Amino acid sequence: MIKYPLGIKPNKNNISYKNRGLALETLINEANEYYLNKDIALIYKKPTPIHIVKTDKEGKIVNAYFEKKSTTDYNGLYKGKYIDFEAKSTHLKSSFPINNFEKQQLEHLSRVINHGGFAFVIVYFSSLNRFFVYPIKKMFSYLKENNKKSIPLNEFIKQGVEINLTITPRLNYLVALDKLFFDSKQ
Amino acid sequence: MIKYPLGIKPNKNNISYKNRGLALETLINEANEYYLNKDIALIYKKPTPIHIVKTDKEGKIVNAYFEKKSTTDYNGLYKGKYIDFEAKSTHLKSSFPINNFEKQQLEHLSRVINHGGFAFVIVYFSSLNRFFVYPIKKMFSYLKENNKKSIPLNEFIKQGVEINLTITPRLNYLVALDKLFFDSKQ
Repeated sequence: MIKYPLGIKPNKNNISYKNRGLALETLINEANEYYLNKDIALIYKKPTPIHIVKTDKEGKIVNAYFEKKSTTDYNGLYKGKYIDFEAKSTHLKSSFPINNFEKQQLEHLSRVINHGGFAFVIVYFSSLNRFFVYPIKKMFSYLKENNKKSIPLNEFIKQGVEINLTITPRLNYLVALDKLFFDSKQ
Repeated sequence: MIKYPLGIKPNKNNISYKNRGLALETLINEANEYYLNKDIALIYKKPTPIHIVKTDKEGKIVNAYFEKKSTTDYNGLYKGKYIDFEAKSTHLKSSFPINNFEKQQLEHLSRVINHGGFAFVIVYFSSLNRFFVYPIKKMFSYLKENNKKSIPLNEFIKQGVEINLTITPRLNYLVALDKLFFDSKQ
């Protein structure tokens, strides 16, 4: 069985999907580097796990494939709290389909909440050029109450926090975390 | 320049070093899986970052090399706290040389402490078959006060917590965390 990078079979649609994903990833990585340099937070992208089949005599990898991620894209430490999140993009204009998540990612995020961490998703509505930070706890409540398979834009507006792009860092998403997780506790 | 797996040039000494390291890693991974299944903690080994030079048409990696880690081996969430640690082995019987750490690992662990996480090292004295959990904060204090380049076994005995192997999991290191980080605060 062939394993494709990030589990994405390379066809036209997926390539554009991948590009949107990469755009969001670039913004988050840039923000994380800024937070690290300014000593604001420690947040890292987890490397994609790779299964190594063969290395040559000099230790160079000559046969390997991308493995499916069992958890999420990012985790880290902010204001003494463990944070854990996924970054997701959609070209849709009015809703975000829940099947953007893999089952094991949702299980992982549920565990994070149960163990006292902050779990969220950063969603990029690429056609609208709008970014939201949305707590996974709210997402689970919404899905349970509404028995739906996608989350309407309006739910992100009401229960999430929109991030407006700024200069440095462009996607200053910790501002949204302050509002969602820290303000009410202080 | 040739990049070797984990930065280790394959010679006789290093292979034995690597095996000791793998033995400890196996025990920690086993414990982490146990903690996950029993819903006790969420602790993962960070995948080794790999720089991919080339993939073939089918997405198989055909040229890549291991990158130097910029942080630590493990991080996670336990009892609502962010934890971050390294696993290190030594064949020495009376001390642990600090150059087992890379500079950027110590910087990372220092940041973890500053941002309110729990940072520690699990040290395996392979010739003695003894395991210790030792807080990085204590290590920094020791190094500062004593101006030494290695930490004596006695310091691990006094300021760390020894882990005695048990049946399941074999290396139940969270018991040591309870003593070091949680008991005094309750």
